[in-house]
Amino acid sequence: MQQETGIVYLVGAGPGAVDLITVRGAKLLAQANIVLHDALVTPEMLELCPQAIKISVGKRSGQRSAAQEHINQQLIDAARRHAVVVRLKGGDPMLFGRADEEMSALEQAGIQFEVVPGITTAMAAAASVKLPLTKRGIARSVALFTSSTAPGETTETRIPDCDTLIQYMGGREAMLTAQRMLANNFPNHYPVVVVQSCSRPDEQHLHMTLVQLAEGLPHCEGPVLVMMGYAMQKRLFSV
Amino acid sequence: MQQETGIVYLVGAGPGAVDLITVRGAKLLAQANIVLHDALVTPEMLELCPQAIKISVGKRSGQRSAAQEHINQQLIDAARRHAVVVRLKGGDPMLFGRADEEMSALEQAGIQFEVVPGITTAMAAAASVKLPLTKRGIARSVALFTSSTAPGETTETRIPDCDTLIQYMGGREAMLTAQRMLANNFPNHYPVVVVQSCSRPDEQHLHMTLVQLAEGLPHCEGPVLVMMGYAMQKRLFSV
Repeated sequence: MQQETGIVYLVGAGPGAVDLITVRGAKLLAQANIVLHDALVTPEMLELCPQAIKISVGKRSGQRSAAQEHINQQLIDAARRHAVVVRLKGGDPMLFGRADEEMSALEQAGIQFEVVPGITTAMAAAASVKLPLTKRGIARSVALFTSSTAPGETTETRIPDCDTLIQYMGGREAMLTAQRMLANNFPNHYPVVVVQSCSRPDEQHLHMTLVQLAEGLPHCEGPVLVMMGYAMQKRLFSV
Repeated sequence: MQQETGIVYLVGAGPGAVDLITVRGAKLLAQANIVLHDALVTPEMLELCPQAIKISVGKRSGQRSAAQEHINQQLIDAARRHAVVVRLKGGDPMLFGRADEEMSALEQAGIQFEVVPGITTAMAAAASVKLPLTKRGIARSVALFTSSTAPGETTETRIPDCDTLIQYMGGREAMLTAQRMLANNFPNHYPVVVVQSCSRPDEQHLHMTLVQLAEGLPHCEGPVLVMMGYAMQKRLFSV
């Protein structure tokens, strides 16, 4: 007879601000017995689950898979001991969140799970800078991409042929992307917006051009999102 | 001397389920004097603002711009009469939401505004079907696109060269996209997932192949999202 196990909720925390989690995510945090959270999740967010055991699984994107396997095992162990397990992931679990590995591990262990979406940084950054990702007559497609540095994966970044280009975890890599775009005949003045520590108290915006991005970004502590395309051009009346 | 006006919040309602709005969005709804909402926003969502005047501005994507200009004017009028105005938009305001036109109109009228992001349907649909948009070794870029049918815009849809392709408002148009993809040597068995009425009580999923999509979808009442790519392949152990 199968042992009774808990249910695991893979919950998107959103970009960082405590009130940019979904209502569903906040309610699950309040009900959780145990919360396994990313390093990027803020202390304020964890105040939504004072009753829960909290474990930082301390992974950032690109770390080696041994760390991921350990997280998978921690999730399985948690579900065998607790009724409500929340796996709290920065942004949205299904986008650059390695959810597939956790879902596969849970399925193979016969553990029930649900996924609760989160605000991905692209949407939150567009909201912060008040520039749209799509724009009538200007931009009707958006690419979300990253240049992975995980072992065994190439570090080369293709330039997707969408109107608005958004590079996640784009700190150092965005410089290389910009250089490749210039080599591919994107114009020097192609508009770029860099958002650092989106939705957090130390959020910063940089409006620049592609040729400036190709020269590199100032050192950033927090997570960096790079948005490129004509939809990122400042409006005439913008304040 | 300038007349004192209210502040307008462009708020993303998310895909439909009342608890998939952000905590920030829900709080603003509870404070709003007036809420101007899309036709797609659900009645349950509007129960979050019992105190507010509620006006359906009844536009779906692709309608002619006269309707959009009327909405812009309604927003400006509302901000001249009320302190807290919420413009509640399905999904995320910055993605296929024509936010740019509303932001421009507000700026030109000298009215303050803020944008609150919402869960876009792609993330909610991925969560529902428990398939990731990015997947290690399989998919590291995602394109969000639509084939616009607005007057003056071509109805031709480019096929973006990203690993995961997501066509919004993809009911009829996705069939044409699939036909074009097959003509561009995408394989017949390329995995496709169609999510209808995402996060609502009548949500439906269809798992199919590109060649099946090219033959057309059954008639759907609700909004349709079409997701394509190898990340959409069912997992071996998936339940």
